Amino acid sequence: MKHDASSTQIEDVVSTIHEMGYEARPIPGRQRTAVGLIGNDGKVDAGRIEALEGVLNVIHVTQPYKQVSREWREEGTVVTLGNGTRIGGREIAVMAGPCAVESEEQIIGIAHRLRAAGATVLRGGAFKPRTSPYSFQGMGEIGLKLLARAREETGMAIVTEAVDPEGLEMVAEYTDVIQIGARNMQNYSLLRRAGRSGRAILLKRGMSATVKELLLAAEYLLAEGNPNVILCERGVRSFDTHTRNLLDLTAIPVVHALSHLPIIADPSHGTGIRAKVIPMARAAVAAGADGLMIEVHPQPDRALSDGAQSLYPEQFEDLMGQIEQIAHAIDRGIVPSLVLESGARVGPA
Amino acid sequence: MKHDASSTQIEDVVSTIHEMGYEARPIPGRQRTAVGLIGNDGKVDAGRIEALEGVLNVIHVTQPYKQVSREWREEGTVVTLGNGTRIGGREIAVMAGPCAVESEEQIIGIAHRLRAAGATVLRGGAFKPRTSPYSFQGMGEIGLKLLARAREETGMAIVTEAVDPEGLEMVAEYTDVIQIGARNMQNYSLLRRAGRSGRAILLKRGMSATVKELLLAAEYLLAEGNPNVILCERGVRSFDTHTRNLLDLTAIPVVHALSHLPIIADPSHGTGIRAKVIPMARAAVAAGADGLMIEVHPQPDRALSDGAQSLYPEQFEDLMGQIEQIAHAIDRGIVPSLVLESGARVGPA
Amino acid sequence: MKHDASSTQIEDVVSTIHEMGYEARPIPGRQRTAVGLIGNDGKVDAGRIEALEGVLNVIHVTQPYKQVSREWREEGTVVTLGNGTRIGGREIAVMAGPCAVESEEQIIGIAHRLRAAGATVLRGGAFKPRTSPYSFQGMGEIGLKLLARAREETGMAIVTEAVDPEGLEMVAEYTDVIQIGARNMQNYSLLRRAGRSGRAILLKRGMSATVKELLLAAEYLLAEGNPNVILCERGVRSFDTHTRNLLDLTAIPVVHALSHLPIIADPSHGTGIRAKVIPMARAAVAAGADGLMIEVHPQPDRALSDGAQSLYPEQFEDLMGQIEQIAHAIDRGIVPSLVLESGARVGPA
Amino acid sequence: MKHDASSTQIEDVVSTIHEMGYEARPIPGRQRTAVGLIGNDGKVDAGRIEALEGVLNVIHVTQPYKQVSREWREEGTVVTLGNGTRIGGREIAVMAGPCAVESEEQIIGIAHRLRAAGATVLRGGAFKPRTSPYSFQGMGEIGLKLLARAREETGMAIVTEAVDPEGLEMVAEYTDVIQIGARNMQNYSLLRRAGRSGRAILLKRGMSATVKELLLAAEYLLAEGNPNVILCERGVRSFDTHTRNLLDLTAIPVVHALSHLPIIADPSHGTGIRAKVIPMARAAVAAGADGLMIEVHPQPDRALSDGAQSLYPEQFEDLMGQIEQIAHAIDRGIVPSLVLESGARVGPA
Repeated sequence: MKHDASSTQIEDVVSTIHEMGYEARPIPGRQRTAVGLIGNDGKVDAGRIEALEGVLNVIHVTQPYKQVSREWREEGTVVTLGNGTRIGGREIAVMAGPCAVESEEQIIGIAHRLRAAGATVLRGGAFKPRTSPYSFQGMGEIGLKLLARAREETGMAIVTEAVDPEGLEMVAEYTDVIQIGARNMQNYSLLRRAGRSGRAILLKRGMSATVKELLLAAEYLLAEGNPNVILCERGVRSFDTHTRNLLDLTAIPVVHALSHLPIIADPSHGTGIRAKVIPMARAAVAAGADGLMIEVHPQPDRALSDGAQSLYPEQFEDLMGQIEQIAHAIDRGIVPSLVLESGARVGPA
Repeated sequence: MKHDASSTQIEDVVSTIHEMGYEARPIPGRQRTAVGLIGNDGKVDAGRIEALEGVLNVIHVTQPYKQVSREWREEGTVVTLGNGTRIGGREIAVMAGPCAVESEEQIIGIAHRLRAAGATVLRGGAFKPRTSPYSFQGMGEIGLKLLARAREETGMAIVTEAVDPEGLEMVAEYTDVIQIGARNMQNYSLLRRAGRSGRAILLKRGMSATVKELLLAAEYLLAEGNPNVILCERGVRSFDTHTRNLLDLTAIPVVHALSHLPIIADPSHGTGIRAKVIPMARAAVAAGADGLMIEVHPQPDRALSDGAQSLYPEQFEDLMGQIEQIAHAIDRGIVPSLVLESGARVGPA
Repeated sequence: MKHDASSTQIEDVVSTIHEMGYEARPIPGRQRTAVGLIGNDGKVDAGRIEALEGVLNVIHVTQPYKQVSREWREEGTVVTLGNGTRIGGREIAVMAGPCAVESEEQIIGIAHRLRAAGATVLRGGAFKPRTSPYSFQGMGEIGLKLLARAREETGMAIVTEAVDPEGLEMVAEYTDVIQIGARNMQNYSLLRRAGRSGRAILLKRGMSATVKELLLAAEYLLAEGNPNVILCERGVRSFDTHTRNLLDLTAIPVVHALSHLPIIADPSHGTGIRAKVIPMARAAVAAGADGLMIEVHPQPDRALSDGAQSLYPEQFEDLMGQIEQIAHAIDRGIVPSLVLESGARVGPA
Repeated sequence: MKHDASSTQIEDVVSTIHEMGYEARPIPGRQRTAVGLIGNDGKVDAGRIEALEGVLNVIHVTQPYKQVSREWREEGTVVTLGNGTRIGGREIAVMAGPCAVESEEQIIGIAHRLRAAGATVLRGGAFKPRTSPYSFQGMGEIGLKLLARAREETGMAIVTEAVDPEGLEMVAEYTDVIQIGARNMQNYSLLRRAGRSGRAILLKRGMSATVKELLLAAEYLLAEGNPNVILCERGVRSFDTHTRNLLDLTAIPVVHALSHLPIIADPSHGTGIRAKVIPMARAAVAAGADGLMIEVHPQPDRALSDGAQSLYPEQFEDLMGQIEQIAHAIDRGIVPSLVLESGARVGPA
C-alpha cells in the first residue's frame, strides 16, 4: 500500500482478495502497511488489485515460503519477551542454562549465577527427546514448575522444549518461549499447534535440514498466525566425527538475506565439546547471530545429560566478556542485564 | 533357558528378575525360550540368575538397543498380516500403490491392477506430511475409508502413514500396517503410541539417521510390547543431487546382521526418479531386502504428489517379472498372489 | 551426418569446422558417423554447417561434459582388453585380486584360483596411495613385474593403479588397464597423461565427487584422445560409519543415462566389510553394472592392506555362482572364462 | 630431554635410536629439546632410551600422525615469510588477491590496493585446476613472473598453487608459499615434492577430508623435513546448496588442540558467495584463525574465474577494519602493514 493509504483503502484490498477466493493478511510496517495474499496455486490477476486506490504495487513472492520471506516483509522481526528481552534487534540475546532441569537447587542456583553474568533467558529441558527409550526423559511438569520458580526469583524469561501436542499445551502455560527441537522440525502437527499457542517459538534446524526446509517449517508457524518465531542453527550431520555436529554458521547470513526472522546459534549442540563452545559462540556473534543458546551446568560431570558439552559457570562468565567485545566490534551490544527485583512476576509475553 | 526348561522354571526366572527391581520379558523361540531383562543402567548380578534351575547362560546385550538386537533374539522376526502376507520369511513381500489416495476410482482401479500383477499389500497416503504448509495434505479419513474399500474388493492388506497421535488412532482402525515416515522416525511420542496400537508398524529410516538410530527408534516400538516391526530403507541425504536421496542398500545386510527385524526397501523415495526405480528395486532384492515398497500411479503425470517417481502400471508389471527372477537367483521367491475372492473381508492381523 | 554420407562430405564438415576456428572430431558409429565440435565457449553458427551436404542435423550438447555424453555418442562404448575381455557389452566383466601385490607366491597363486573361478582380469596394487606416510606403500616396479608374470601364466588381463606421472609411464608398460584411484580423480595432470598413455583407463569416483564431476574427470581422458575409459563406483563419504563408504549403486543407471561409457562397481572399497561384499556385488549386477572389481586374498587376515574387506577365495567362488544367476535374470551373462593356455602371451590391448 | 641436557647427551639419544633401527629427529624448543623417533610400527623398548643421561621421559604419540601433533611439539609453529609476515603468532596474517592472475595491469594494480589496505601476502593462481578440461587453466609461468613483479613493487609475499610435480619446481622458484589445493590434498606424490621444496606450504583441506586426514596429509610434508606448513579450512561438501561449500570453522579450534601447526580460513571458497565472505571472515577470526585468505578482484564481474565470490576492493577495505576490531576483542592483532619501500627485493624465506 502507499504510505498514506487509509484504513478504508486497506480494507478494500482485503475484501477484494477475499472475493477472489484467497486469504488476505495485512502486515503493518514502520512506513507502510503491506497486504499478503495466500492460497494461490498459480497466477493471480494482479491487475484487479493494482487498480484499487491506495495500492502502490503488487509484488510476487517467488519462494515456496511466503510469510517468512524478506520479500513479504522487509523489516527484520523483533521478538519481545515478557521481561523485555528483544531478539532480532541491535542487541544480542543470551539464553543459558542446563540441558535438563534436574532439581530445584540446581535450576534456581544456576539461574541466579547466569543472570548475574548477564543472561536474560533461562533454558532447561523438562521433556527430553532421547535416542534410547531407556535414557532419562526429563522431569515433566515438575520441571516446568521449577523453571517458573526460577523466573519468579530472577526475572529471567524461560525457554523449554515441547515434544508432543499434549506436552505443548502444558509447556505453553509455564514458558515464555516454546522450543521445537531439531528432531521435530518437520513434525508438522506439532508445528501447527505451536503456531496457535500464543507463545514465541524457538525453532531449531533439523539435523540434515536445508535452510529452505527450515524456512518452510517456520512458514507452518506463521501460517497459523504466530509472528514470534526465532530460528536456531545448531549444527548439521557431517562425515567427520571430530565434533558431534557441524555448526553451519554461514546459515546465519543466509537466513538474514532470505528471511526477516531472527536467528540465534547453539554452539553447545553444534559442537558437543565444551572446549569448542567458547570459540564458536564468539564466531556466531561475529557472523551476525541475533542471540546465543549455551548449556551451562553447575557440575557438568554430574549432569544427567549432555555433560560433555556444558560449560562450567566460570567459563560462561568469561565467555560473556568475550562476546560483549565482539558485539561491540560489529556495532552491536548484548541485551542488558535485567533490572527487575527478585520475586517480581514476569509473565509470558 | 535350556531347551527343556519347564514353564515353572521360566516363571521363577521372571519373578527373580522382578524381585531384583527390573522388568522381565519372556521371548519364546523355535528351540528354546529366552528371558530378557530390561531397565538396568549398569551391572546386574548375573550370578543370582545363573544359579536358578533351567537357566542355560546369561548373555549381556552390548548394544544400546536391546530388544531389536540379534543378541536378544537370534531368529529372524516374521510379521504376518491379516491376508497372510509374511514379511521377513523366505519370500519377498511387495507393497505398491500411489503416493496419495486421490479418489475412489483411482485407488480401487490401481488396487485391482496391482493385485493382478502380484502385489499383496496396497500403499496409499491419507495423511501426507508436506514440506510446505500450502501443499495438498491428503484426504484424511475419507482416504482411509477408500483404502478399506480397496481391501474389501481385492483382499490386499493396507499400509498407510500416521503423522500425529490423533491420526494414529484413526489410522489404526482402518489399516493392517501403520507407516511411521522418515520425518517422524525420532518423534518418540508418536513411536510410543504406535507401539501400543496393536498394528504392525513400518518404520522408515530418517533422512540422515544412522542405522544405529533407526534401530533405537525401533526399540521404542518393541519397548511398548509391539513385536511386529518392519524397517524400511528409503534413501539418505547426500551432497549429490543426481537423485532425490541416496539409497543406502548396504543398510540391508547391515540391519540383518545387527537385528532380527525384517527390512524392506523403498526405491521410489530412495531415488525420486521413475527410470531409476526399476534397477534399484532389482538391486534391493539382490542385496537381501525382505520386501519392496513401490509407488505406482494410473497416470503419474496427473498425480497430486510424487508423480515423477511413480511407475506406470505397465512398468510395475514388468518389474514384478524381473524381481521374481532375481529372487529365484538367490533362493528366495515372491509372496504368492492372493487366492482370496474379491469382497472377502480381510481384517487387520 | 546422414547414414549414407560419403567420406568426402565428412571431410568437408571437418575442414569447415577448422576454418571456423574450432576442433573437429569424427565419431564413427554403427549406422552413421557423427562429427564432434569442441572448443566453442558460446554460440556456434550452426547454419553454416547445416548447409553442408551430407549433414543430417546439428545437435547442441547441453552438458558441461561433451565427449563422454550420450548426446555426443548414442551407442554404449565397449572397451576390449588384450585377452578378449569386453567391458560395456552384454556380458559382465569380473576383475579380482588382492589389494596389493605382496609376493610372487601370493599373486601367482591367487591368479590361478581366480581364473579358475571365472575372473578374467587380475587386480593388484604395486603403488598404493596411503593416508599415512608411514604405511606400506606397495612394491613398485617389482610388483608390476609379478603382475606381468601372472598374466603370462594365466592369460588374465591386468589392472593396477598409477599415482603419479612417473609411475604412470612405468605402469603403462606392464598393464592392460591403468587405474586412477578415488583420491586422484581430480588430479588433472595425471588424467591428461593417462589420456595419452595408449592404455584403457579405470577411473574411480572420488570420495565426495558428484556424478557430474566424475564425468568431467572422464572428459579429460577423452579430450586427450583416449576412448577406452571405464568408470567405477566405489562408495562415497557418509555421516554413517556402519560401512567404510556408502556404495551409491544408483550412480550406475544414472551414468548409463548420461554417458556412453561403461561403469563397474567396487563393493570391496564400497563397504569395507567382507560380509557385505557379497550382497552388494549381487546388487551391483542387478542395478546394471558392466563389471565388478572384488578384493580377494589367499589369507585376508595376513594382508598388508585392506584385509578386513578381502574375500576368502572360497567366498569368491560362491559369489561367482550367485552373480552369474543374477546376470541371467536380467538377460546378461558373465564374460566367459579364458580358453587360453597357461603361458600364452597376452599383451596389452 | 631435560632442560639442561647437553648436546652430547642429545647426540647419544639420537645414535641409540639409530642403533635400534629407527629414525631420530631432534626438535629444539624454547625450553628444552625433544627427540622424535619415527619408523616404529609397534612397540619400542622405551627402557633403553629412558636409561640414557639427560632424558626426562619417553612420550608415546598415540595418534597416527606424529610430527604434526601437539604431543610431539607443544609450542605452536610460527611460519615466517621473506617479508617478515609471521603466520601462527599472536597476529593474524591476511592473504588476498584475485582467483587467477589475468594480466600485468590486473595483478600489479590490485596488489598496490591490497597492500595499502593492510594485506601482506598476495594470492593469485597461475596454474588453475579446473573441473572441466575446456575452462581457462591459468597463465602458467607468465603468471608467476607477474606475481614476482608484484612482489618487487609492493613488498608483499606471494602464495600460488602448484598442481603437478613439474609445475611445483617452477612455482618454487617464484613464490614464498606454495599452495596445495583441496583436490590435491591426498596427492601424496605432490606432497612429498612439496615437502622437499624448501618453501612454506599452504595445505588446503580436501572437499570431504576429515581433520585427521588433513593432519595425515600434513604429516607427509613434515616427514620430508619441511616444518613450514600452514593448514587452511576452505569448506567441505554438504547436502545443502545454499552455499558452494560448508565452511567448518570448528575445525580451527579442533586443529589447534591436536596440532602445533597454524591454520587459516578461506571464506571465499568456503562460501562461494560475495555477500557471505565478510561475515564469515569475521567469524573465522573470532574462532581463532591464524590468518585469512580472501579473493579480491578489481572487477569481479569480469573475472575469468570465481568472480561471484570475489570481493570488490572497497569491500575488502571495510573488511580489514572489521577484522582488526574482532582481533583486538580476542587479544590478537593483524600482521602490521609492510614498511618496505616499493621496489625493495623481498626473496622467499
